[in-house]
Parts: sequence; structure tokens; C-alpha cells
Amino acid sequence: MKMIEGGVTAAMGFQAASTAAGIKYKNRKDMAMIYSEKPCMAAGTFTTNIVKAAPVKWDQQIVKHSAFAQAVVINAGIANACTGAEGLGYCSDTAKAAAAALKVPEEAVLVASTGVIGMQLPMDKLCAGIQAMAPQLGGSLEDGTEAAKAIMTTDTKKKEVAVQVEIGGKTVTVGGMCKGSGMIHPNMCTMLAFVTTDLAISKELLQEALSEDIKDTYNMISVDGDTSTNDTVLLLANGMAGNAEITEKNEDYQTFCKALNYINETLAKKMAGDGEGCTALFEVKVIGAESKAQAVTLSKSIITSSLTKAAIFGHDANWGRILCAMGYSGAQFDPEQVDLFFESAAGKLQIIKDGVALDYSEEEATKILSEPEVTAIADVKMGDAAATAWGCDLTFDYVKINADYRS
Amino acid sequence: MKMIEGGVTAAMGFQAASTAAGIKYKNRKDMAMIYSEKPCMAAGTFTTNIVKAAPVKWDQQIVKHSAFAQAVVINAGIANACTGAEGLGYCSDTAKAAAAALKVPEEAVLVASTGVIGMQLPMDKLCAGIQAMAPQLGGSLEDGTEAAKAIMTTDTKKKEVAVQVEIGGKTVTVGGMCKGSGMIHPNMCTMLAFVTTDLAISKELLQEALSEDIKDTYNMISVDGDTSTNDTVLLLANGMAGNAEITEKNEDYQTFCKALNYINETLAKKMAGDGEGCTALFEVKVIGAESKAQAVTLSKSIITSSLTKAAIFGHDANWGRILCAMGYSGAQFDPEQVDLFFESAAGKLQIIKDGVALDYSEEEATKILSEPEVTAIADVKMGDAAATAWGCDLTFDYVKINADYRS
Repeated sequence: MKMIEGGVTAAMGFQAASTAAGIKYKNRKDMAMIYSEKPCMAAGTFTTNIVKAAPVKWDQQIVKHSAFAQAVVINAGIANACTGAEGLGYCSDTAKAAAAALKVPEEAVLVASTGVIGMQLPMDKLCAGIQAMAPQLGGSLEDGTEAAKAIMTTDTKKKEVAVQVEIGGKTVTVGGMCKGSGMIHPNMCTMLAFVTTDLAISKELLQEALSEDIKDTYNMISVDGDTSTNDTVLLLANGMAGNAEITEKNEDYQTFCKALNYINETLAKKMAGDGEGCTALFEVKVIGAESKAQAVTLSKSIITSSLTKAAIFGHDANWGRILCAMGYSGAQFDPEQVDLFFESAAGKLQIIKDGVALDYSEEEATKILSEPEVTAIADVKMGDAAATAWGCDLTFDYVKINADYRS
Repeated sequence: MKMIEGGVTAAMGFQAASTAAGIKYKNRKDMAMIYSEKPCMAAGTFTTNIVKAAPVKWDQQIVKHSAFAQAVVINAGIANACTGAEGLGYCSDTAKAAAAALKVPEEAVLVASTGVIGMQLPMDKLCAGIQAMAPQLGGSLEDGTEAAKAIMTTDTKKKEVAVQVEIGGKTVTVGGMCKGSGMIHPNMCTMLAFVTTDLAISKELLQEALSEDIKDTYNMISVDGDTSTNDTVLLLANGMAGNAEITEKNEDYQTFCKALNYINETLAKKMAGDGEGCTALFEVKVIGAESKAQAVTLSKSIITSSLTKAAIFGHDANWGRILCAMGYSGAQFDPEQVDLFFESAAGKLQIIKDGVALDYSEEEATKILSEPEVTAIADVKMGDAAATAWGCDLTFDYVKINADYRS
């Protein structure tokens, strides 16, 4: 696997464009478009919130029923959630406008929105944006990067990644971009991720690869425990790498899954590490678990604990909060068997052995916890299963960003 | 039901004492003792966290196996959690010391701790505290109030309440005190509540009354979603009111349950309204629910949503976050049927009708949300069940309190 520069335009045949449509933000781009020269197999995974934004409902239908997809239209600023029949109509209108501009079928256009809930989209501006973007589509790395910037809300960094693998004697590229947590006019932590590849693969296997992989990647991050109405991951494969189409779970499929996992894990970690107001990426590994499910429950309980997150902000080796969060997670284990370690670029230190604190150096612990990426490792000594989750610290700025009045 | 002054010493025969034992704090009281002149039926409910502090394990045994209880020894500063066999031994040592000082059986002494996890109790100071308190026991309101102050950690207000009801021609008093969320050297949000009554009632019914009532009171509050290792509610009944012992669920039992509910709900709301760093008590009523369980799930999901809590801090009528938190709660409902209202001393305002925002005045909404006690009412229009939950806002001070280094 070879890491390369780029994002959604890294794979062959994928183009992007972006524009300042004035939907909500001033003086910055707030719309992006992804386009594939050839029709794509499309896979998607979506929020489990029963309050689903209109674009989520739209995309679920497209992914399920359309033979192929060829474009994605994305806006930042308004989520198009809790907008009733009118909002769903605007998804259809957006797809129609893009279909006309790009000369593709309406049912090949996916849409995604992020931003404030309950407001209707200004369709005149959205359609003007589509008109402006269509002739500007390009396949350069810069076109991809500009799109990654245009979909940001309170993100502080654009998030993209790409890799290449060898499949059936052909070079296959997988690239992606995403946006994470927060809004200038805060309303919702909304996660959107777009991954493109020139791999040839059946639609069923593409969906299966994505559905399996999100369990270890996007579903293992949390910024504030609030599951958005808009969460969307879209994966498009246009087959232009020229490999023999993957139709079974052979070695080629596994190679692709590894590349996809690298892309998704990298994007997921970028989101967690750029959570609203955060100063540190907080990684939690639970090892020695009885089952994967147990390790997932324990690790997610730790990364979502407000008290633990505040302690990470304070560079405080407050292991009691971690043990406590494990204890109320619902998973069964023996607290008096737990070992706990903190690790970062500054070193690794055991804090607890068999549920009781060691005589560790608080100074060394603080040093380890003062790095921008810190890891807690909890060993429950019950078996061989493990899971890793990613979150961030809870800071003054998180409160500031989310308490600010919307208008 | 008649509201009266006082707390744990309001009921006949209950005495309290408190002292500065120097366990963790300087220049303030940090130990309290409750004593009943007559043996009491004891009931208790405890944390569901599988990491249970030593005093929780001790009290569970006493409540289950002892014929009666007669004293409670409480310390603030050290939680005696994650302290292994040594910590459990200290509970026994504490009970022994109190039993000797008060001339009651060791197995009639309950213990409770709140504070930092993982540290061992300084038993010399604890025993000296017991020696100092035993001769000072008194039944005045002030003795109760001083005890309520001594068990505080980062609480900003002492929390006590008492009522009287007529049962079997006798005046029965129920009183209680509690401490809420936070530590000066923060480690755990620990909830302790102690309720005393001079009612005569069987042990079985006393436990049932408590176990039922906590579902609607203590179990419906949240400050930060972190379930402590030490949560304890103890209810002592010494029978000194002289009523005929309640042994069945008759009208007298219901009268007592109403009084108990008033005490528990009041104490629970005092804890939520004095959550770490908070500026407002946030009450959430879910009405029109299909079942009580559904209403509980929805209301608790709203009060634990970090984004909603931050919006309450900002006096922002950010209804999208409330609908979102309902959506990811796991409860089934139709988002497009939901009505939502905000209410406080400043008025009541409908924000959403059938899932879509009304053209309400943001100014009026902000005015309503600027009160120290604010209520959100969500009607899901599916039936007649309802539930109320209490939380607080998420503030800069919450982060400050919990990010500060422990030592």
C-alpha cells in the first residue's frame, strides 16, 4: 500500500469543483461537487438517528435503487434536516439541476448537506452554485483540496487522504475527504465523508466492504456523543483502473478492504482530532477482551465520558474516571483484573495493575498526556479480542462554540 | 402534606453530628454522622456501576442481612473506590469504631464516602472524627444542617428537605439530605442521599417504596452522564411516630410514598440544579408517550445531550438539538408529529408543531431560557404516558472544575 497525495480526485476519472454560493457563509466557498467521467457503483452508510435529514433519505434511495451514480452535490451551512416534504423536494430539485448541468440521469446524483437544522435551503443560490461549478470540474489534486475546504464548517483543517494498491496487475487508487464536527452557527455535529476509487467491483461487494469497515472506523469515533441527523459516508467506484471486476471475496477484495480501511480510519481520526474546540486526539485501546463487542462497548464508553474528556484536557492521569466509565458501560468484567497504560510520543507508563494504582510518577504521566495525540490502553485480561476508539478532549472552546447564539 | 424546615434530624429520634476530620479538606467539616435513638428498618439503593466503591459493597450487605440499622458514618474527600481488600477492611473498621462509640452492633452501622478514587482512607483521622462526633450528636435542625454542609464536595449549596404527613392518626415526618456533583480535587460525580423517617413500616415495604421511587427521582437526573462508583441512597425508618406498622400497600403506604417522593424529587432536583459549574436547572417533560419507558428514554436522552446542554447555557432555543437527541435515543416515534415547548417563570412558548418550526419570536424564547429554571416539553402524540427528567447546562466552569489537576 502506497500513501499518495490527494483526496477525492486522486482516483482515475474523478473530478471536483467548488464555489462560494452564499448559502450561509460569506467570503468563503460553501458548495462542492464530485463527478466521475464514468458511471460508478455506489455504496453508502447513513445516520441511525430516526430524525433523518432530507439528503440522507434521498441518498438512501439512490444507493439502493439506482443502477449507478455519477455525481455528488454538497453544501455547507444548512443541513436540510427537519424540513418536511419541502426539504425532500429540494433534494430532488438539486439532483435535477445537477443532472441537467452534467448531462447525467437525475437518479445518478447524490446530495449531502451540513449545517443548521430546520432552515430551508435557498434553492436559487444552490442552483446558481451548480451552474457555476459544472464547467469548472477538474481532476487535479488542487480541485480535490478546494472541495475538501468548501465542505468545512467549524473544522479547523481540511481532511483528505489517498492510497494506491496493486489489484489484478493494475494500480488502483482510493481517495477520500470528509468534514467533521461543528458549525459556526452551531446546530449539529455532522459527519460527511466521500471516498472515491477507480476499482472495478460489484455493487454488492462495494456496499459490503463499506458496511463492514465503518464498524471499525467512523462508528468508533465520538466528539460529543450526539449522533447527527445528517451523517453520511458515500463510496463511489468507477472501474477505470481496468482491473477485472471483483465479484467475490478473493485476495483482490481483501487488498481493496485494507486500502479502504486505511482511508476510512485516517479520515475518522482526522475528524476526532479536529473535534469542536479540542486540543488532543484521544485514542482508547481495549485489549484482552472476551469479544469484539465487549471491547467496542468499553472503548466507546471511555471516549464518550465527559469527565474523562475533561481530564485529558487537563493532562490529568485521572484513571479513576476511566475505570468508572468502563464500569457503567454495560460490559461485564472484573475491575480487579484491569491493567491500564497511558502512551504518547512522550512515552508509555503503566498506571493501574489488577485494578489498583501503581506508584507511578504523576510528572511523567502529565508529560505523556500533554502530547497532541494520547492513547489509553486498558487490558481486561479475559481473552484475545480488542477494539480501538477515537475521541477528543472536552474544552472551554467546545462550550463556547456550542453555547453561542445561532444568529 | 406539610412542608417543614429541616433535613435528616426532622423526624423524631434522629440525631446528627459533624466534624472537621482533616481527611482531605482543610478549614471545613468533612465528616458527618446520623444516629437514631431507636433501631431502624433500613432500605438502600446503590450504583449500578460494576466498579463499586467499598462502602457501597458494605452497605449492600448491611441493608440485605442486618435486622436493623442505627447509624450512618459519612466522609467527604476520599471515595474509598478502587481500593481493593484494604478499602473494604476500612469500612469494617469504621463500623467497628462507630459501634463502640455509639454502643450499637457493628452490623447496624452504614458507611458512605465521596471523593477521589483510588486513595486509601486515613483511618486514624476517620476514627478520631467518630470519637469527636459521638458525644456531639443532637436532634436540632442545626445539627442536621451542619451535617448537610459537611458532606458537600463541589456542591455550592447544602441540600435538605422535610415534610410531615398524617398516617394512622399520627404525624409522620420524612426528612433528607444529599450531596451532588463534583470534587474540589475532582474525580467523580458522586451522589449520596440520606432520608430518615419516624414511620413504622416493614423492611420489605420500606425497600419497595424506595426502589420504586428512585426510578422517578434520582434515576431521572444527570449532570454529565457519568454513573459514579459510589452512588448511594439510604432510607432509615425508626417507627417513633407511633403509627401502627405498615405491612401492606394500603392508603397509609400510599401517603408515605407521596411524602417520600416529594423528599426524593426535591433532593434530586437540588442536585441537578447544582451540577458542576451549572447556571440553570434544565427540566425535560416528555408527554403523549406510548409508554413510561419510552418517555423515560426520550427525556433522559435530551438532558444528557452535550449539545443541548451547551445551548441551554447559551439561552439558545436550539430545538434541532433536542429533536436530534430524541432521534438517537433508541425510542421509536414519528419526528413529524412532535410538538415542542419551552417554559419558565418568564412564560411558555411553542417552538415546533408537527416536527417543523413555528414562526416564533427568538427574543421571547431567549427570555424564557434566561431563567435559572427552564423546562422543555416534548409531546410525541402517541399515548398518555409521560416522564420528567432533570439536568443542567454545560458551562465553562464544568470544564474548569474537571480539567483542574488533582493535586
